[in-house]
Order: sequence, then C-alpha cells, then structure tokens
Amino acid sequence: MKYVRFEAKSGIKYGVLDGKNIRIIEGSIFSSEYSITDKKIALDEAKLLAPCEPGQVICVGLNYKDHADEVGFTLPEKPLIFLKSSKSLNHPDGMIKYPSETNQIEFEGELAVVIKKEAKNISAADAYDYILGYTCANDITARDIQRSESQWMRSKSYDTFMPLGPCISTDIDPNSVRIRSYLNGEKKQDSSTAMFIHNVPTIVEFVSRVITLCPGDVILTGSPQGTSPMQVGDRIKIEIEGIGELSNLVVADEK
Amino acid sequence: MKYVRFEAKSGIKYGVLDGKNIRIIEGSIFSSEYSITDKKIALDEAKLLAPCEPGQVICVGLNYKDHADEVGFTLPEKPLIFLKSSKSLNHPDGMIKYPSETNQIEFEGELAVVIKKEAKNISAADAYDYILGYTCANDITARDIQRSESQWMRSKSYDTFMPLGPCISTDIDPNSVRIRSYLNGEKKQDSSTAMFIHNVPTIVEFVSRVITLCPGDVILTGSPQGTSPMQVGDRIKIEIEGIGELSNLVVADEK
Repeated sequence: MKYVRFEAKSGIKYGVLDGKNIRIIEGSIFSSEYSITDKKIALDEAKLLAPCEPGQVICVGLNYKDHADEVGFTLPEKPLIFLKSSKSLNHPDGMIKYPSETNQIEFEGELAVVIKKEAKNISAADAYDYILGYTCANDITARDIQRSESQWMRSKSYDTFMPLGPCISTDIDPNSVRIRSYLNGEKKQDSSTAMFIHNVPTIVEFVSRVITLCPGDVILTGSPQGTSPMQVGDRIKIEIEGIGELSNLVVADEK
Repeated sequence: MKYVRFEAKSGIKYGVLDGKNIRIIEGSIFSSEYSITDKKIALDEAKLLAPCEPGQVICVGLNYKDHADEVGFTLPEKPLIFLKSSKSLNHPDGMIKYPSETNQIEFEGELAVVIKKEAKNISAADAYDYILGYTCANDITARDIQRSESQWMRSKSYDTFMPLGPCISTDIDPNSVRIRSYLNGEKKQDSSTAMFIHNVPTIVEFVSRVITLCPGDVILTGSPQGTSPMQVGDRIKIEIEGIGELSNLVVADEK
C-alpha cells in the first residue's frame, strides 16, 4: 500500500494510490480507525504533499561506509543520531531555497522510516510493529556550515531542506532497496539500503531507548556515497525502489 | 506577569500568578485573544506543569566562557546551536530518570526564552516582539555520552531531561538576571546572564535565520560554570531571579 497526503479543491486529505487515482481515506492513518473509501480523485488533479508532518526528525549520521569515507568522517561504532528541524519539511516537488549563509548545499538521498505509534524502549525484534512505512527523503546539507562547526543541526535545518515523499510505502524491505539520486538527469548516487551499517530495526531500537517516538515522526537512515553540490536552477531527484521519487528545483532564497 | 500552566481538578489550564492564587486564563497565551478572568484557584491546590509544550527546543552551546573552559570545549565565534528532543520535557517538580546507558548525568541551569509568535528572519532589534517571556530550564546532559560522540543531541534528549518552569515571566531583563543551581542544598552554579557571550536578541536573530520559530518553542541559552554529576536520590534546584525555581529529584529509570 502507498499512502499519500494531498491537496485537492476540497482541502488536504490522505489517500492510497490506486493506479492513476487516489482512493480517499477517512480518519487518521496513524490510528487503527481510518477507512479507505471508494471515493476517488485522479492523481493528476491532486497536489502531492509531504506524506506526514513529523514532530521530530531523527537523523542517523554516517550509516553507509562509502559516504563516511567521502566526507572524511570517522565511522561511529554505535548509530550516531541527531535532530534536523521538522520545520525544514518540504513537499515532493517543492522548491529548495538556497540560503545566503552558505556557498555549498548538497543533496543526500535517504530512506526515511515513518513511525506509526508511540515507541519507547522497544526491541529490534518488535520494531516493525511501530513502523507505518517508508518514504524518500532528501537530507539537504550546507556542507560548508557542517564543516565549520561541531554540531550538524544548523547545516541541515534551513527551511525547505527536507523534501519528503511522494508516498509512505508499506510493502518494501527497508534493508534491501535500491536508492538513486540524479542531479539535472545525471546519476550521482546509486546504492542499496543493503549497504546500511545499522539496519532499520537496530536504529529504531537505538533511538527509542533515548527518545519517545511519536506517530508521524521520521527517522532518516543516512545517505550513501555520491553527494555533491547543487546550484540555483538545478533539479535534484531522489528515487527509491518501491516508493517513488522526489523532484525538487533549487531557487535563490530572497530573504 | 508570570504565566503558569497547571493541573487542577477541572483539568489543565493556563493562568497568571497573583500572590498565593492563580487567576485563570481563557484562550491561548500564544494568541492575542486570551483573557485573564477573575476566576481564581489557590496556588497550593494546583500542580504546576512545564509552562509550555515546545514543538522545538533549540539549545545554544557554550554561551558562557567559564563553562566552555570547564568542559574543555573551544569557544565558538558564532552561536553554536543544536536541538534537544522536545520529548525530554519535564515539569518543575518532575522526577529525573537516570538512564542505564550513562554513568554521569549532570545538571545545567539555563535561562529559556519562550517564543510568542512565528519568527523567521527577524532582526535582533525586533526580537523582543517575538518573545513571550522567560523561564528556567535544566538542560540535563549525560556527560559521558556527550564526550563519546560528536553530536550532542543524544546525551541531552532522554525522557525527563528537561525540567522547565515554574512560570513564564514577562518582566525580567533576560540579559541581566542571576542564575543559581543547588545540588542537595549546596550551591553549585552562581552566575548572571550578563555573562552571556551572545545575548538574547542576537540569539533569536541567529536562530530565526535558520529555523522558523513557532509559538511555544523554547531556546535554551546555555549554562554557566559549575555543572556537576548527579546521583539517584539527589535533588537539583535551578533558580533564576524574577522567575522562580525548579526542584527535581533524580530517580533510577526502571526500563
């Protein structure tokens, strides 16, 4: 199943993809009480939005060895976690604003885990019970800012720095899907989540021992090798097998 | 004025302190439409709660030179910001759970800025228009975890790691109030926010250039010298002139 959040003439709703249509959902997909109705809307009449509005965005740093090598960071023994501002949320086709404080913004294609229900101190064995599904994320990073200070949050938290979507897919194996990024059509990242250092259940267990995870929270699982700078006018696509793609244009930030 | 959030028999409400009473507020203190009613409840019949429920908790690291020296970190030129999980929120008298993953949890008394309305790209000159008031925070930190990995979020984000309160005070000069911490009655921190490296308007401007701040978000402004370890059974009090005090007992986490 692929859940989408979308805007139509009648407002913002959830639905499930059904070919070229969306079947409208009544109720919250984060409860057990929603229903998939027979009401449909054509996919091309809906604007797809980020598929959830996370209260918290937990990032796992350096979860692919090849990326840790390319950015020159030492590989951590445990999952290295940090927070990205939830206000950086962007839509699957939203514009990425290039902040004036940086001269080097880079894409990072990542698999995102969407939490279904409150999770605290859960074991890896039970982790899948707390996961609604998976979506694509672009963990945009101002690399020059990241290198200039010890904490990574600021470099990753500017408004529009987290395109998310286009759907929450429930039927993939999160530890074995292909993930690719294309900058202006040129392939830049091509890897598989099979290359994770820490897999999804391990990460969920680890994070839940610290933070109480809530419905709609997302965990970004790290990016593989191949991140590179983007310029104003560039289009960046992130594609994950079994989910779909993000496609975002970089624009100047006129603040 | 001192806003409080409290729980009484009739539920959770906001009010303002009025001697030994609380005058009950109708409406949200984060809008311009609330009113302070003549209805009162005795202070000793109310349980004071954390005075807001922040969506985001932004921390400023190393904002007092003496504390940067004592923990051995280099002083940053710009405000060094990072996020603490909002799920670490605790009440003014809530119990602090000592996680099993750490052997060294420390208090950090801090002035917290409470945001009144959405703030993005605002100047220091306008910052006070976006601030509702100030409260006390204890930015509890697992020092051993903080030293063991590059990102500080995990060490500061365990549940119960952020006692906040007891009120939001609107009438203090945030850049010149005395701040003290007492561990089991022994004074451990005694400083003034006049020792800030970056003052409140500068911090609000800086953060708002990155993140869209929202009503109820809090910014923790850093801790002065004197942080030290706490053990199970200890009571830690944080007191800020013109606001009030936090008083929290450390207990074992039975997870």
